[in-house]
Amino acid sequence: MLRCTSCGNTYPEKFMLRCKCGAPLNLIRHYSGKFKDFLRTQFLDIRRYLPLLGGDLQFYPQIVPPLTPVVEKKIHNIITLFKLEYLMPSGSFKDRGTYITIAKLKEDKIKEVVLDSSGNAAISLALYGLSEGMKVHIFIPKHTSKGKKRILKILKAIVHEVDGDRMETHIKAEEFKGGVYVSHWYNPYFLEGIKSFAYEFFEEAGEIDYAIIPTGSGTMLLGAYKGFEELYKFGEIKTTPRLIAVQAEGYESLLPMGKRKNRLAEGIAIPYPPRKEEIIEAIEKSGGMAISVSEEETMNAWKKLISMGFLVESTSATVFAAFEKLISKDYFEKGSRILIPLTGSGLKNLGEMMEIIMGGKTI
Amino acid sequence: MLRCTSCGNTYPEKFMLRCKCGAPLNLIRHYSGKFKDFLRTQFLDIRRYLPLLGGDLQFYPQIVPPLTPVVEKKIHNIITLFKLEYLMPSGSFKDRGTYITIAKLKEDKIKEVVLDSSGNAAISLALYGLSEGMKVHIFIPKHTSKGKKRILKILKAIVHEVDGDRMETHIKAEEFKGGVYVSHWYNPYFLEGIKSFAYEFFEEAGEIDYAIIPTGSGTMLLGAYKGFEELYKFGEIKTTPRLIAVQAEGYESLLPMGKRKNRLAEGIAIPYPPRKEEIIEAIEKSGGMAISVSEEETMNAWKKLISMGFLVESTSATVFAAFEKLISKDYFEKGSRILIPLTGSGLKNLGEMMEIIMGGKTI
Repeated sequence: MLRCTSCGNTYPEKFMLRCKCGAPLNLIRHYSGKFKDFLRTQFLDIRRYLPLLGGDLQFYPQIVPPLTPVVEKKIHNIITLFKLEYLMPSGSFKDRGTYITIAKLKEDKIKEVVLDSSGNAAISLALYGLSEGMKVHIFIPKHTSKGKKRILKILKAIVHEVDGDRMETHIKAEEFKGGVYVSHWYNPYFLEGIKSFAYEFFEEAGEIDYAIIPTGSGTMLLGAYKGFEELYKFGEIKTTPRLIAVQAEGYESLLPMGKRKNRLAEGIAIPYPPRKEEIIEAIEKSGGMAISVSEEETMNAWKKLISMGFLVESTSATVFAAFEKLISKDYFEKGSRILIPLTGSGLKNLGEMMEIIMGGKTI
Repeated sequence: MLRCTSCGNTYPEKFMLRCKCGAPLNLIRHYSGKFKDFLRTQFLDIRRYLPLLGGDLQFYPQIVPPLTPVVEKKIHNIITLFKLEYLMPSGSFKDRGTYITIAKLKEDKIKEVVLDSSGNAAISLALYGLSEGMKVHIFIPKHTSKGKKRILKILKAIVHEVDGDRMETHIKAEEFKGGVYVSHWYNPYFLEGIKSFAYEFFEEAGEIDYAIIPTGSGTMLLGAYKGFEELYKFGEIKTTPRLIAVQAEGYESLLPMGKRKNRLAEGIAIPYPPRKEEIIEAIEKSGGMAISVSEEETMNAWKKLISMGFLVESTSATVFAAFEKLISKDYFEKGSRILIPLTGSGLKNLGEMMEIIMGGKTI
């Protein structure tokens, strides 16, 4: 069942984005038994978790997201656990959400869809849409990186460039009448797919104290939190990890808005996320906090990640920037175990990456 | 123990490339018991297979290759099983070989290495070398794609461009005195890492009738064959799959050399592989064959793979080109199960991919 996050109104499980009252919906499901009983351990990919993600196997897309590996490093007496989400078929963690969304769209016989995105969600939808024979309209801000635009064209998406910022792009997409709007900012099935991130991480690395999550629209934070909460209810973990929501300076929704703009964080440059109340609730319930990082901090963190061999895009570096900032303030207890997801591939924007990192270009 | 593939001379397990007689070496190991007893199922990544790949856990690189997913599609009554090797940390299957190689180099305290490569093996070594604090010299042909050169620079490899073809580049690298030469054409530890490809595929998809493998230097074919042979000896599979070695027109080592050159297959443009005798033996023992594909066939196959949502580079399309060619000749029995590895990521050469695929540029 779908339930409104604001008025509590409920709906059957059809593909829909918002309640009549306008607020986002969530999928409400109850599981009894043990976590292990829900696993299909014969699968070594996301299908391992399908009984907890819902839907019918016949509708799942052919391209299967892998289990992404976890890389453990000890940094300043802290155990950091990097989860390599950028090794997904479309190059970002969004594939988890898209995979479940597409299954639902197919079940509901929806074949033409519309999405606005700064890039990664669009590429993910375009890839899965192409593979499953759907028509995909993508609205992106004109300033989206050349690499990402290229991939959208290669993936045969119908690209609508908007001469405005991320929020204006969102409005244009929602107004467009050429297909079903599937915004991941609202889409409850998308969040349901992201839950797999938490299950998988738990199977790979066990319990943790903190999870540092890039937070724009909040899909990763909310999906991961939902997964961790379920693991807690199953009795698998003693407590949900404290969530540290990382925001980009100049685009903060959870903190006072900074004056300078962090232009290296296009993936989270979303100052007005529709699920803001839920994000705040999740952070508070987990005992976490929000933190903002500047462009300079992101740049430094990005260079360090690449030196470690992580070929990620710059938005992904915001979480490591936050980690370093908090380390410098002695925020973490010695020996803490910290999840740091690396969300997006740097290979999509190789040209720009090269110019910025090697050439000292100041974007 | 290491054993010469030609004169049979043996050596202890140190890092070395060739026998005194000049021929390549192989690792000889014997396993008794069951395949399952060797698995470390607590790991959901390549470490699952380490007891069969050898070496000491303390030396393994921090960046862990994932288990790559298998996508099943029915094409003309044939079950095709695409294994997405391009979702590796450096964007190609080479990471399997590099991972085990680096572990051995660390064990032997080797810190400065030299490699020649058309791109992917170099990027893999540069990434793991950077992450593990090694100095990496890379020899590449001058005509290597811009995207691949960019990544090598981002990964801080010391790049030596050779004004010549793939074979001349190999000679220059072997002559260079600035570090230990680690050519994957010879390196027995590299093959040992590739074995994991076969184990993993078997766990994911079970038995198959054919495996269509891109074959230049033969590392994937020989590594996969070794893995399948071991599975056969363990009693897990009834027979090793028939190996179909795919070569690029104009660069054939196993077939009469074509007159035109397939310029879309730089990854397998290796007409004189040092392990040629072993390649022939593996193909014959498996009951397989070799086949060559043209540039045009590769281009058509590449476009089709991308339409299926596989963002691969053009060399990876040679296997699908071979599949289509054999389908058109009714080569496969109805209902056959066929492994088609997709070896390298297309994201590394996005610019070129765009120009060729979208613009109709004839390279």
